[in-house]
Amino acid sequence: MNFASDNWSGVTDAVMAAMARHKDGFAPAYGGDEQTAAVGRKFCEVFEAEVAVHFVGSGTAANAISMAAGARPGGLIFCSADAHLYNDEMGASEFFTGGTKLIPLTARHGLIAPETLAAALARFPDDSRTGVPATLSLTQASELGTLYDADRIGQLADIAKARGMAVHMDGARFANAVGALDVAPAEITWKAGVDIMSFGGTKNGCWAAEAIVVFSPQRFGGLGAIRQRAGHTASKARFVAAQFEGYFEDGNWLKTARHANAMARRLADGIRSSETARLGWEPQANEVFAVLPKAVIARLRADGAMFYEWPAEEVAVGPEEDLVRLVTSFATSAGEVERFLSYL
Amino acid sequence: MNFASDNWSGVTDAVMAAMARHKDGFAPAYGGDEQTAAVGRKFCEVFEAEVAVHFVGSGTAANAISMAAGARPGGLIFCSADAHLYNDEMGASEFFTGGTKLIPLTARHGLIAPETLAAALARFPDDSRTGVPATLSLTQASELGTLYDADRIGQLADIAKARGMAVHMDGARFANAVGALDVAPAEITWKAGVDIMSFGGTKNGCWAAEAIVVFSPQRFGGLGAIRQRAGHTASKARFVAAQFEGYFEDGNWLKTARHANAMARRLADGIRSSETARLGWEPQANEVFAVLPKAVIARLRADGAMFYEWPAEEVAVGPEEDLVRLVTSFATSAGEVERFLSYL
Amino acid sequence: MNFASDNWSGVTDAVMAAMARHKDGFAPAYGGDEQTAAVGRKFCEVFEAEVAVHFVGSGTAANAISMAAGARPGGLIFCSADAHLYNDEMGASEFFTGGTKLIPLTARHGLIAPETLAAALARFPDDSRTGVPATLSLTQASELGTLYDADRIGQLADIAKARGMAVHMDGARFANAVGALDVAPAEITWKAGVDIMSFGGTKNGCWAAEAIVVFSPQRFGGLGAIRQRAGHTASKARFVAAQFEGYFEDGNWLKTARHANAMARRLADGIRSSETARLGWEPQANEVFAVLPKAVIARLRADGAMFYEWPAEEVAVGPEEDLVRLVTSFATSAGEVERFLSYL
Amino acid sequence: MNFASDNWSGVTDAVMAAMARHKDGFAPAYGGDEQTAAVGRKFCEVFEAEVAVHFVGSGTAANAISMAAGARPGGLIFCSADAHLYNDEMGASEFFTGGTKLIPLTARHGLIAPETLAAALARFPDDSRTGVPATLSLTQASELGTLYDADRIGQLADIAKARGMAVHMDGARFANAVGALDVAPAEITWKAGVDIMSFGGTKNGCWAAEAIVVFSPQRFGGLGAIRQRAGHTASKARFVAAQFEGYFEDGNWLKTARHANAMARRLADGIRSSETARLGWEPQANEVFAVLPKAVIARLRADGAMFYEWPAEEVAVGPEEDLVRLVTSFATSAGEVERFLSYL
Repeated sequence: MNFASDNWSGVTDAVMAAMARHKDGFAPAYGGDEQTAAVGRKFCEVFEAEVAVHFVGSGTAANAISMAAGARPGGLIFCSADAHLYNDEMGASEFFTGGTKLIPLTARHGLIAPETLAAALARFPDDSRTGVPATLSLTQASELGTLYDADRIGQLADIAKARGMAVHMDGARFANAVGALDVAPAEITWKAGVDIMSFGGTKNGCWAAEAIVVFSPQRFGGLGAIRQRAGHTASKARFVAAQFEGYFEDGNWLKTARHANAMARRLADGIRSSETARLGWEPQANEVFAVLPKAVIARLRADGAMFYEWPAEEVAVGPEEDLVRLVTSFATSAGEVERFLSYL
Repeated sequence: MNFASDNWSGVTDAVMAAMARHKDGFAPAYGGDEQTAAVGRKFCEVFEAEVAVHFVGSGTAANAISMAAGARPGGLIFCSADAHLYNDEMGASEFFTGGTKLIPLTARHGLIAPETLAAALARFPDDSRTGVPATLSLTQASELGTLYDADRIGQLADIAKARGMAVHMDGARFANAVGALDVAPAEITWKAGVDIMSFGGTKNGCWAAEAIVVFSPQRFGGLGAIRQRAGHTASKARFVAAQFEGYFEDGNWLKTARHANAMARRLADGIRSSETARLGWEPQANEVFAVLPKAVIARLRADGAMFYEWPAEEVAVGPEEDLVRLVTSFATSAGEVERFLSYL
Repeated sequence: MNFASDNWSGVTDAVMAAMARHKDGFAPAYGGDEQTAAVGRKFCEVFEAEVAVHFVGSGTAANAISMAAGARPGGLIFCSADAHLYNDEMGASEFFTGGTKLIPLTARHGLIAPETLAAALARFPDDSRTGVPATLSLTQASELGTLYDADRIGQLADIAKARGMAVHMDGARFANAVGALDVAPAEITWKAGVDIMSFGGTKNGCWAAEAIVVFSPQRFGGLGAIRQRAGHTASKARFVAAQFEGYFEDGNWLKTARHANAMARRLADGIRSSETARLGWEPQANEVFAVLPKAVIARLRADGAMFYEWPAEEVAVGPEEDLVRLVTSFATSAGEVERFLSYL
Repeated sequence: MNFASDNWSGVTDAVMAAMARHKDGFAPAYGGDEQTAAVGRKFCEVFEAEVAVHFVGSGTAANAISMAAGARPGGLIFCSADAHLYNDEMGASEFFTGGTKLIPLTARHGLIAPETLAAALARFPDDSRTGVPATLSLTQASELGTLYDADRIGQLADIAKARGMAVHMDGARFANAVGALDVAPAEITWKAGVDIMSFGGTKNGCWAAEAIVVFSPQRFGGLGAIRQRAGHTASKARFVAAQFEGYFEDGNWLKTARHANAMARRLADGIRSSETARLGWEPQANEVFAVLPKAVIARLRADGAMFYEWPAEEVAVGPEEDLVRLVTSFATSAGEVERFLSYL
């Protein structure tokens, strides 16, 4: 019963097979190989656009390098207060940008409301002595398992662009979002105003495969140099490319994501119909937030279940309860879900 | 005939098998897993000491994070003018340290002489307005395929430590050095005064596996945070650990390194006895520098041979000649070496 | 009627005379002169302790260099959401520290409550992936014209030190605080747990004279190098020293500060007894925040009065009113205060 | 007999008087005052062009902020190995740029030869893994008291611009250069290809007055924010403006510079005709480098003479001799020069 995080899972057979396929022979280092080029073209297909792709080794790197490429002295980055790049990256974006301030926004169930963004931007006019809005980062799926639809992304992007800002999407769980919304990737990225994204493969079945996908190259400078001096230009770059090869072939990426989403729905259904537990809010991707009695949590843990308690800022939680986060992945089995639910 | 670089090679069967072995199941993220711990203990065995180990995704990251951990405002880093961290990392060490100046030292055939170091340090007294010596970085094997023996490392470290400096070893090709010198790793590291090292696995048969090995923890602060905010704390850290598992088991790392060294010796022997080519200097590890007639180079390239020309600063090269670098690896076959030599 | 800011004022006669006194002759550059040494001793007298003093050219520099000296990778800085170093310095502290995140705390009328600090620190345990508490910065007098007494500083410092943090005081208006609290400077600094401070002279009658005063030297490293590489080691350092000479002689610094405070009290008294205006809160130093009818504001501006509107987050302000900030200084005359009050 | 450095001198009467003139009254902070605007227009007159001017507190700040404004990830800065920004600023340019590498060039008597620059640039092609040429910095007058004429500057700028680089001039002693070359400032700056300069006032009679003068604004971004977050946006900016007012009025800046140059020529003439001393090379501005017998140096020091020994890399110096640097300024008297010469 492991619902700790999707990054506790391993690697899919397809990804493993693709890596094994490329283990022999020689290939130019640092991304000059054919494999890397082929995967780059695959990204163009997926997004139905001429995109530039830069592989990196982690989601933190993808986020921070994206922020650095769009940075300017005194620029400000706006994101949800729950955002990974604000909360979980030890100040990577601040470090890579040479000290850009991040402005965390209150976000109901992980989603920034247009009016929240507008009000926050109004606090920083162009002659602000604090800094000037430079980048908006949206997380899709959000850290709280919810989703922005294309309209909402468009509204937020419009507000940001009226101030000349770049729009970034942290897509560590982008596949889960695409799978759940059932839209073309283009619809919730560049067509909605996203300029650059962190495209995650790791949480959804790769070993370590993340890509910075650039939709608006004119807005971002020096990405190659920023990545190299960060130590994120892999010498054997085909090892990342091979993972993405296995990830995309036969639509694997959406299959695994949809499986994870389905497992989350099953968990949610069970919790919804339970008498001892209740949902914190409706899950839309592969994360379920639920309020459980502490006694139940203790029994689950005693039997080896893995999951994290979560700060209960948005839901009412009684003294004998806790809010927990349950994350599903390609590796989550229906049996494990049923077993978990049997404790409720 | 691929002698371009050891990072053009793929991955050994042992490393691939170890990765495959760990593809299933769940494990704590960010290095909290048993596999990572086990490999950490393996490093302690290899170095016969209690060492701290931090995995990272590239040699550039290992170098730059090491430099950052030993940095101080106004500190200076001394290294060979050929050093990878000076020449090939797009300013990573400068970036990670917030702007430390690197002082490149003239190094005959890649090796810094003690008197060169002493003279350079004398230019920067403790009240220097340029900066104050903070770190010495030695490359082993050197960028020019040569080796420091334990005595020489000790002499250099003594000079550095008399000024309070930390001593770093860039061991991107450390296995080749250990294999060639036939010494215990401890002898040419901490016993000789090395405080921290970049231990490379990638060039010698891993996909992407590098480790920062800390011998003198009291000298280095904040390594965990520096690594995390650099995006080099892998979420599925066991993917690096697995590579090192395969790397170390049955002494594979020294077998592959010795194979590469042997192939380099064979190349060198052939060149030495050739009438059309000559060695730039005696190779000691897995890189051979040779002067070839341009016509021969052209014929080799026409038949698909891959290698790089090198700036001829230390050898006399005629107008119809060029200095070339030939790098061997675990993937280099004796047949390819013979085929190359047949052109000379 | 200029109440825009104390940094719109000029320079006192005493400071001007001291500068003129030192205009001739030669003196060692970069702070090696006798004048600088003498002023350093004067600071020791003022603080009744052996303090180290580093002059810089601005309050922003004093704050940011202090933050840099106490920084560590992944460290977090806690300050009031009103703090100058959070709001008005274009990210200087983030830049100088290489990307430290500032955590702004809600502070009633500019003063951080101990329980607010404690609650904020609890959100960042030692294994936080966001960062670890490193420095607390308190502003005295606060940006909202209020004061911490020695007890309150001690309580806050105790909470911070229980987490191993350094305590910084932004004393851009420290003289106003000392004058108003009528305490020895030591009581509200090192005796209460302050480790380092930005000691301001500029707002209180100097041209550009700020000093970093270090009470706990063991906590801060590399201050000399940090200052020099920031371009804040003045070559003709005696020009700063001369200003402080004039500032301290005959207790001028407290005389000018007390004059400014008295003018603020007079303003406050007038506003309190007015029927058209009211105080936002009780002023304690040289800044008065008052709610005025927009019509009165318009008339004042039409007649040349200078002051700023302020975001009304802590007071109820009607639709026909605005909150304004009125700052007094050594250069504020009683006549101008009376003239201002005559509009109410 | 003080020939230690021009920054050991005080302030001219004209500068002092201008400061005194502006000591009273109120003026907008941070450079929004009329005085700052007026001095900005004066700079346009001096340079016969529409220039943007940003005051800062030190030459180090002017250099480093200029470098930061022209920086890009992986960019390289080329300068003389003698340059102040390489040698004497504790890594300020590296720090402000987030880690740009400086490439020091051998420069005969302080002046970079066009062929030296061309050869250095050739080592860094556009796909270099070290970095890509971004900025050339020329020092005028050079650190060794010599001058670039307009033609030479133009040749160097042409070479730099063929690689897309920006050209910076460190004009800490620009007045001495203008005075000695007897040219319009425009001729040796923007007309010759200079894009940005550090314009020094401090060494030539101000307290602390330096300006970044921008000739090619399209090449430099974010100067205002870079300066502010560096703590170099003076709140009472009129104190810098006032100094420049006194500096420029009645052509004072060239009068004091020419006096310093004349004193240097007088020193040089005396040394040239001396039998015990000789010139290291011909001085062209206000610095004289001479070889003196150690015994003479000792006698001079015993009688209170102040000057520095200099590393003798470009001149032959016997075992009983040393190379010394003698700097003159507006404050150097003919009597002191004669007194010094009387020892030779």
